[in-house]
Amino acid sequence: MEFNVYAENCPTRMLLDRLADKWAMLILKRLSDGKMRFNQLRRDVEGISQKVLSQVLKKLERDGLVTRTVFPTVPVTVEYAITPLGQTLTSTIAALTLWAEENMPHIMEAQRRYDGVALTEAA
Amino acid sequence: MEFNVYAENCPTRMLLDRLADKWAMLILKRLSDGKMRFNQLRRDVEGISQKVLSQVLKKLERDGLVTRTVFPTVPVTVEYAITPLGQTLTSTIAALTLWAEENMPHIMEAQRRYDGVALTEAA
Repeated sequence: MEFNVYAENCPTRMLLDRLADKWAMLILKRLSDGKMRFNQLRRDVEGISQKVLSQVLKKLERDGLVTRTVFPTVPVTVEYAITPLGQTLTSTIAALTLWAEENMPHIMEAQRRYDGVALTEAA
Repeated sequence: MEFNVYAENCPTRMLLDRLADKWAMLILKRLSDGKMRFNQLRRDVEGISQKVLSQVLKKLERDGLVTRTVFPTVPVTVEYAITPLGQTLTSTIAALTLWAEENMPHIMEAQRRYDGVALTEAA
């Protein structure tokens, strides 16, 4: 079977939609440094809600990118870890987040220029 | 200024949100092969609506990743091209779409396994 993300009904398009998500990327990148408990992950990925974190983790688990392990402590401890398949993806994600961090000054300059032009045109 | 995508209020987080979008990625990757008219782009990126394509292009233009050139033909011709800054991003995007296309069989196998377990647990 030939996969092509440009084809509307290709399963890779749905996969791209799930991966091309800031939360999924931030979670996978964080887990690539080592396994983590739910609450630690929630603190590290600033601004994510408990509900969204739980939904994204479930999808990543279903895709085989993350594992969920429950320890029978009181209260129960739940630990998330990246799988070898998930690990193959993290260098790509790291490249994108690094690009964003490195090129932000250029982007902000472009935005100021664009907004300046828009103001001039509106005047 | 130090940028960090894990910080909720960092501008890179907003940038990541815009880039971590399947449409933005598919458009940038397509434009990396050469400039293109709006309608051609709309045909190539299957399933995108005219409204969404136009919105995403506007954001990419504001971020300095894409240029928009209007030719005074009848009717007007509008051409989009990737900028040198946008071009620096495309290898990263290409790596992600290639990963999706190459690893889809593993993902589908993981999904079948997950759904099978879920069915067993529900029974």
